Amino acid sequence: MKPHVRLAVPALLLLGLAAASPPPRAGPLTPGEIVAQAPGAAWGAVPADDLLVIDLDGGQRVVIALAPAFAPVHVANIKALVRARWFAGITINRVQDNYVTQWGDATEKKPLPAGIVASPPDEYARPLAGLGFRAMGYRDAYAAETGHTGGWPVAREAGLAWLPHCYAMVGVGRNLAPDTGTGAELYAVIGHGPRHLDRNIATVGRVLAGIEALTALPRGTEALGFYKEGAARPAIVRARIAADMPAGERPGFDVMKSDAPAFAAWLKARANRQDDFFIRPAGALDICNAMPPVRAAVPK
Amino acid sequence: MKPHVRLAVPALLLLGLAAASPPPRAGPLTPGEIVAQAPGAAWGAVPADDLLVIDLDGGQRVVIALAPAFAPVHVANIKALVRARWFAGITINRVQDNYVTQWGDATEKKPLPAGIVASPPDEYARPLAGLGFRAMGYRDAYAAETGHTGGWPVAREAGLAWLPHCYAMVGVGRNLAPDTGTGAELYAVIGHGPRHLDRNIATVGRVLAGIEALTALPRGTEALGFYKEGAARPAIVRARIAADMPAGERPGFDVMKSDAPAFAAWLKARANRQDDFFIRPAGALDICNAMPPVRAAVPK
Repeated sequence: MKPHVRLAVPALLLLGLAAASPPPRAGPLTPGEIVAQAPGAAWGAVPADDLLVIDLDGGQRVVIALAPAFAPVHVANIKALVRARWFAGITINRVQDNYVTQWGDATEKKPLPAGIVASPPDEYARPLAGLGFRAMGYRDAYAAETGHTGGWPVAREAGLAWLPHCYAMVGVGRNLAPDTGTGAELYAVIGHGPRHLDRNIATVGRVLAGIEALTALPRGTEALGFYKEGAARPAIVRARIAADMPAGERPGFDVMKSDAPAFAAWLKARANRQDDFFIRPAGALDICNAMPPVRAAVPK
Repeated sequence: MKPHVRLAVPALLLLGLAAASPPPRAGPLTPGEIVAQAPGAAWGAVPADDLLVIDLDGGQRVVIALAPAFAPVHVANIKALVRARWFAGITINRVQDNYVTQWGDATEKKPLPAGIVASPPDEYARPLAGLGFRAMGYRDAYAAETGHTGGWPVAREAGLAWLPHCYAMVGVGRNLAPDTGTGAELYAVIGHGPRHLDRNIATVGRVLAGIEALTALPRGTEALGFYKEGAARPAIVRARIAADMPAGERPGFDVMKSDAPAFAAWLKARANRQDDFFIRPAGALDICNAMPPVRAAVPK
């Protein structure tokens, strides 16, 4: 059998062949080809004021897009914490396999800076109205419909919309209700989407780059995946909002627009894979397998 | 807010409190409590002849339950490869974030032992009849129904049933159709279930223990997550079928039976979380969030 280097499938025996050019192929574009060929108008820049840039002591960088449209008070808290340099020295304390990587103040004693809303309101969902929600049209176990808006994956039901707990989504750790968490304790999803957390926790963003720095970590050996007392913990050297960084150092990311024709084509191609590899296209797509494409911003 | 040590939620600020006993709580049992209290009759031992035990050169052990009821020829091939010691020295060559960890012969030149079926039949799905399938009753994007049988997660549609691509499920790498792969190249899912692969690849098992040895690895930096030429690759020291191991060394695992009352109670509790933490139970469950509980076998 001839290896086929364009196919993003687990089966491919392409070792040593990655440099070979694939032959031209007839038929519809693959999802990857659609992304590669999408025009500039299909992409929307993440505002620099909504881009959280975290540098870890191992040299890795994690970049998170924040979602003020869904959790404005929590996002404002996170920005205030960042700008007060509160996250410097904060550690990753929990890595639970197929669940979350979580970071926060392991001492639980670091005082929060002034201006933080200690008890933010419930921002677990928001009104659907005004979002310009575009439904995908496929079944979902947890919501009446799923789809996208403004470059975000969205679930909706009964007039409410929320950011679902998909791989790489970021949420706010909290205690018991009615506490909602301040934003000082955050986690990223590193496994199959734990959608039962939807509407029980504020989801505030998505990791756009550097997710490996959170997923390839040793799993914690204590209950719930917490690291053992005294275990080495990756530490945050500094966290910044991209808008506050010198222009020359500022990372930028584009997310494919939810209303772009290229995005509609990408969703269709993802749901109906026509690559030579696929024998039976699914004809469907789970919202967590439909996370909008991201690219590093093209320098102006 | 009082931390609550029983709650398996990301939010919990329980550092330093893990040893505290939770207070008795009224109300329905949590999923974890149901598993802990399930009677012996609720558990079924994985046959030692279906348990693949892989030892890696870093000292980690990965244990995989094989599924001959779903892919008999592929599973027979895998057992024959194991018994011919073919996997000794085989390396992990690919770790693609939110997708798969894959192992096989990086040289692509290691001859297969005698007795291997070079072109197994399509075992991407099997007849539903005779499986004793128990539907969960929740919506699924990719199949008419999802549920369980014999301790396995199952998707079904139009008289066919298959093992869905969920986190920790193991599949057989292949080239283009009509090749189905021999079983010499295997992968485990390490991200959100790539269900579009369902019915396009033979799924042959599930990692029951040691998944961290496959998920906490550095991601490959080349296309499709392959490791760069010359990069350190975890190697398989030996792979054995548990039945072939000395009785005293043989690991054993039980999976909760799909027809056990405790399993029905566990599914219900997972779909309708009543822990104090949950404000809004989902009332639903994705099949990949309903992987049957596993425990190390109780010594006889």
